[in-house]
Amino acid sequence: MTMERIYNFNPGPAALPLVVLEEIRENFLNFKGSGMSIAEISHRSQEFDDVINDAVARAKRLLNIGDNFQVLFIQGGASMQFCMIPMNFLSAGKSADYVDTGTWSTKAIKEAEIQGKSIDVVASSADKNYAYIPKNIPFNAAADFVHLTSNNTIKGTQWSEFPDTGSVPIICDMSSDILSRPLDAAKFGLIYAGAQKNAGPAGVCLVIVRNDMLDRVPDSVPTMLKYTTYSAKNSLYNTPPCFAVYTVQLVLKWLEETVGGLEKMALLNQKKAHLLYNLLDTGSFYRATVEPDSRSLMNVTFRLPSEDLEQLFIRQALENGLGGLKGHRSVGGCRASLYNAVSLDAVEVLTEFMATFEKKNG
Amino acid sequence: MTMERIYNFNPGPAALPLVVLEEIRENFLNFKGSGMSIAEISHRSQEFDDVINDAVARAKRLLNIGDNFQVLFIQGGASMQFCMIPMNFLSAGKSADYVDTGTWSTKAIKEAEIQGKSIDVVASSADKNYAYIPKNIPFNAAADFVHLTSNNTIKGTQWSEFPDTGSVPIICDMSSDILSRPLDAAKFGLIYAGAQKNAGPAGVCLVIVRNDMLDRVPDSVPTMLKYTTYSAKNSLYNTPPCFAVYTVQLVLKWLEETVGGLEKMALLNQKKAHLLYNLLDTGSFYRATVEPDSRSLMNVTFRLPSEDLEQLFIRQALENGLGGLKGHRSVGGCRASLYNAVSLDAVEVLTEFMATFEKKNG
Repeated sequence: MTMERIYNFNPGPAALPLVVLEEIRENFLNFKGSGMSIAEISHRSQEFDDVINDAVARAKRLLNIGDNFQVLFIQGGASMQFCMIPMNFLSAGKSADYVDTGTWSTKAIKEAEIQGKSIDVVASSADKNYAYIPKNIPFNAAADFVHLTSNNTIKGTQWSEFPDTGSVPIICDMSSDILSRPLDAAKFGLIYAGAQKNAGPAGVCLVIVRNDMLDRVPDSVPTMLKYTTYSAKNSLYNTPPCFAVYTVQLVLKWLEETVGGLEKMALLNQKKAHLLYNLLDTGSFYRATVEPDSRSLMNVTFRLPSEDLEQLFIRQALENGLGGLKGHRSVGGCRASLYNAVSLDAVEVLTEFMATFEKKNG
Repeated sequence: MTMERIYNFNPGPAALPLVVLEEIRENFLNFKGSGMSIAEISHRSQEFDDVINDAVARAKRLLNIGDNFQVLFIQGGASMQFCMIPMNFLSAGKSADYVDTGTWSTKAIKEAEIQGKSIDVVASSADKNYAYIPKNIPFNAAADFVHLTSNNTIKGTQWSEFPDTGSVPIICDMSSDILSRPLDAAKFGLIYAGAQKNAGPAGVCLVIVRNDMLDRVPDSVPTMLKYTTYSAKNSLYNTPPCFAVYTVQLVLKWLEETVGGLEKMALLNQKKAHLLYNLLDTGSFYRATVEPDSRSLMNVTFRLPSEDLEQLFIRQALENGLGGLKGHRSVGGCRASLYNAVSLDAVEVLTEFMATFEKKNG
């Protein structure tokens, strides 16, 4: 007998909406009457053009971005973006500002340095193990761009609003909170997001780029590492990851048609996170690790009184159908990721389990 | 009423074994009792470790490669390999030999040139529109490597055997014929193959690299573009394209357990191709475009007496459940791709249709 589906609090790859999975399964041997699977159809077919065009149109509507932006699909995850960004946008003799909020922004900084590019780490929360988002940052007005990580999956922090960088465009890694709340695109030159948290499965990265940024791309960049290669061909210069793009399309459709847009999604995400943070802030058994004004609504990190209790908690949670609650191996502790596809119901079941666990072990 | 599954002669993405598609569908909502879809499970889980380790082990057994090689999974398709290869293996002050057999090898050459690397195009079949594989090539004994494209999807040519390059390792794009026949790995320093033809869906590239090649990788290469990043972490430095790797695993399992290995696969592929070439060489209605000793067993390219007849042929074939027979947009004409998952039965139905079409229109 196979186990039923669990409540999935994984940090990424993460839960997908059940209706999306069911639609994929339903059509898996015969996609839209083509007589082929989505895993078999040509990326040059009308069927696939419809998939990618619909995904782009839905992303633009949901994120309220105009025709001065392109939506691209690129392979290699956010980690590939870490190297593409300085390669494409950081010109000789100029510098870029990076804010270090832990792990992922640290890696982005390292990739600029490997290329010998000039960067300025204008703020860091390393002094408190990245448990807060820096404020009052001295940005350089002459920088080519400012790089931020909007939500820090491992540390559990999130920018609740983005800083004023004047006329310097923000380049932002939104891997773990894109589509979780409405976007004001005006501040951004480029946004990127590995899909495997809020937007789809692993294997594709969403990139939203402002048209004028594309003018900066040097000819000397290899073809597959140039944003202009993707923008010129609607992400079809070479074979895209068709299955992943299709799944993203279905997630975007679910967000528009079932959830009803990002305002509604944001309200629901706030409700989910508040439910869990309220429990963490009540009593002393559970302890949230992040300063209140910097807490992520997506990844709620917390500790129990001892590592033994944390292990017991994670094991018993899984026995009760609650999976993915282990903290990242680099920081330990516990973490519940509450991405879009994690229902309020799932968070209610989690908090009930946590209350019971505290009664037994507190 | 949805159309049933068609005979799929697409050049890539291409037909997958029906049993593979059925297994994916069967487990799509609950992968191995995890309570999660393969599109939702963590790449750090035991379940996914089992997938990737099994895929690596099967690839090594099928291709008869020893522990002096690593099997890696990299995103970006063969096109990303075109730029990674010179970046990783072509050192300053040295040169590499490239053989130009059309489109894909031409692109590989261009990516080395964009990086300002020194290369020597030691042979080309451009003089006859790439309708043959060059012979008696003057390779440079001091070259860092020789780059070949084993099978040319668009032009319909294939190396039936690989040239003697002495001690210079061959780097080979096997995107469209890997796993179609046994491999003698001894000549190769690196083999790469976008999975979407013989090995799986779009979204992952198989890379087989000889350990000593990894010693050449310079520190200055960005992390995601270094082969050593993938070899050091079993392709799990960052989130891999889990669904694509899983599908490759199932295709490899099918090759081992259902087909019975690459010797048997090769015999079947020969039978399929000979059936079609025999028909093309009989009479003058159909005309194979490639010289007999250079013909691909994977992509059979042919013309009809007129472009009007070609269009009629492609349309009527599709009406009869035979899809994907249009030649590449850059060369026109017709093409039947006979990858591993295309059955002998499918080729028999195709040749019967072609005989009937000739009777009516010849």
